[in-house]
Amino acid sequence: MFRDKIKVLDCTIRDGGLINNHNFDHRFVREVYKALSEAKVDYMEIGYKNSKRLFSAKDYGIWKFCEDDDIRKVIDGIESKTKISVMVDVDRVDVEDIKPRKDSPVAMIRVASYVKDIDKAIYLVNHFADKGYETTVNIMAISRALDNELTEALQQLEKECKAQVIYIVDSFGALYQETTEFLIKKAKSILKTKEVGIHAHNNQQLAFGNTIEAIIHDANYVDATIYGLGRAAGNCPLELIMSFLKNPKFDIRPILDVISKEFVPLREKIEWGYIIPYMITGILDEHPRAAMALRNGDKKENYREFYESLVGADEE
Amino acid sequence: MFRDKIKVLDCTIRDGGLINNHNFDHRFVREVYKALSEAKVDYMEIGYKNSKRLFSAKDYGIWKFCEDDDIRKVIDGIESKTKISVMVDVDRVDVEDIKPRKDSPVAMIRVASYVKDIDKAIYLVNHFADKGYETTVNIMAISRALDNELTEALQQLEKECKAQVIYIVDSFGALYQETTEFLIKKAKSILKTKEVGIHAHNNQQLAFGNTIEAIIHDANYVDATIYGLGRAAGNCPLELIMSFLKNPKFDIRPILDVISKEFVPLREKIEWGYIIPYMITGILDEHPRAAMALRNGDKKENYREFYESLVGADEE
Repeated sequence: MFRDKIKVLDCTIRDGGLINNHNFDHRFVREVYKALSEAKVDYMEIGYKNSKRLFSAKDYGIWKFCEDDDIRKVIDGIESKTKISVMVDVDRVDVEDIKPRKDSPVAMIRVASYVKDIDKAIYLVNHFADKGYETTVNIMAISRALDNELTEALQQLEKECKAQVIYIVDSFGALYQETTEFLIKKAKSILKTKEVGIHAHNNQQLAFGNTIEAIIHDANYVDATIYGLGRAAGNCPLELIMSFLKNPKFDIRPILDVISKEFVPLREKIEWGYIIPYMITGILDEHPRAAMALRNGDKKENYREFYESLVGADEE
Repeated sequence: MFRDKIKVLDCTIRDGGLINNHNFDHRFVREVYKALSEAKVDYMEIGYKNSKRLFSAKDYGIWKFCEDDDIRKVIDGIESKTKISVMVDVDRVDVEDIKPRKDSPVAMIRVASYVKDIDKAIYLVNHFADKGYETTVNIMAISRALDNELTEALQQLEKECKAQVIYIVDSFGALYQETTEFLIKKAKSILKTKEVGIHAHNNQQLAFGNTIEAIIHDANYVDATIYGLGRAAGNCPLELIMSFLKNPKFDIRPILDVISKEFVPLREKIEWGYIIPYMITGILDEHPRAAMALRNGDKKENYREFYESLVGADEE
């Protein structure tokens, strides 16, 4: 039996963009949008809405900025009920860049924030909500949030923030099911008027398992990516969560097609998934940046040395 | 806090042998044994004890038969507390091949059985137990067992069988956490005098998640394989479960080393892991054999066609 309230957001292009500097071409992104639309996925997150005053367009691909014209190039002419989402990071957006909802192809804006930046996130979300967008706050690095600070942030979000959904984001792929259960129950207990979401990383092959766990405890927004594409170990695979959810509107076949035709060849060019250095940062509850640097160097398979460099690091 | 009663059995060579006809050479198996011994893994399952009267030694590698001489070649001279296990399949073993425990390098014999063959499994286990071995019954294809038949099999095992451990085996990688919880609780409720174990496959990236779930509900024997090596999608990765268990005796570094030196190169030669045709057989609760055949042919990336061939098959 499926739960109609559960919404699936595909963030393949957005999270995948963290591997290739947001350099997916229009054709590829259009194929993804077509597949997601045919599969009846609820949302597609297409990139970040960063300010071109803060980041040079020469250094990044177009999905770092998500100009309306680029979005229209990939969606125009495709029949779809899949809504477009963009992500903004605290301190990296110019709110004046954001047009009113009625003038934009974007339906939802998600604000990614650490617990410490929650006031800034609330300011941004309320601004975007007033412009007519659906909004969420995605609380990053949740595995490192101190419990009292998280409690306060959630209370503030419940009271002061117009976001419909608050996401728990396991940025480091460090959570086990028991902690996922704890965090989702905690969020649900405080966020009486909002939905709770889950965004999981796959460093320990638990992105899907933790997403199921979150759903069991009443998270109704789930992030996934096609073939698990995403930064470092990647994310919860869309094809798995669609099969689990059993919503009769979903059709997995367009997703299988786009994996065959686009993602298997792509995997030969860029790397993501269960790779031991990402596993190591996951079990140590660390950001994967050191592992990503290792994978770009000539010691990429020196796992023991990498592990020892992290556990030996002086933290006190 | 760790649970001392939890025992980890590495079945890399045994389950991995199902990919390459049990053709690992002595050097490779010795490297695995050395790593497991240094890592302080409790058991190493080295292969099957099949009868050479039923299978020709010309058609299979040595780990299909696990002669004592071959086992000694890989373990002699290595300091170790890791016990050797072999698996036998119902109807494929000649019990007269099995020497008394005191004359053999093997410590444990595990009997793999479908629910329907449980009487034969009990006969075999009791025979091996009488020869002095630690014994288990591994109930295969558990996702297809009918509840009343499984209940009866578990009751029989509790009453008539000398095995110390009864394993739940998710042969098809079809279980979600909720069903894992149901099955482990059921087994624990009937098997008052025995331990319960879990052997999971990774078709849906849930082998580790389901193993954690089983542990939460008091399974104390867990199977794993180095880098997840195993038939089709492979198994619960040993490096992940070791990190989860937090038993201070474990050392993950020898496992990281052997992955670097042996398993990364091996993965270039033989295929296992999260590959879409294995995902498809997992979500459909099917044996992976059709997917394995597909991967050996020239349509290996035709996922939609493969999916439709399975869901369209006439089953009534």
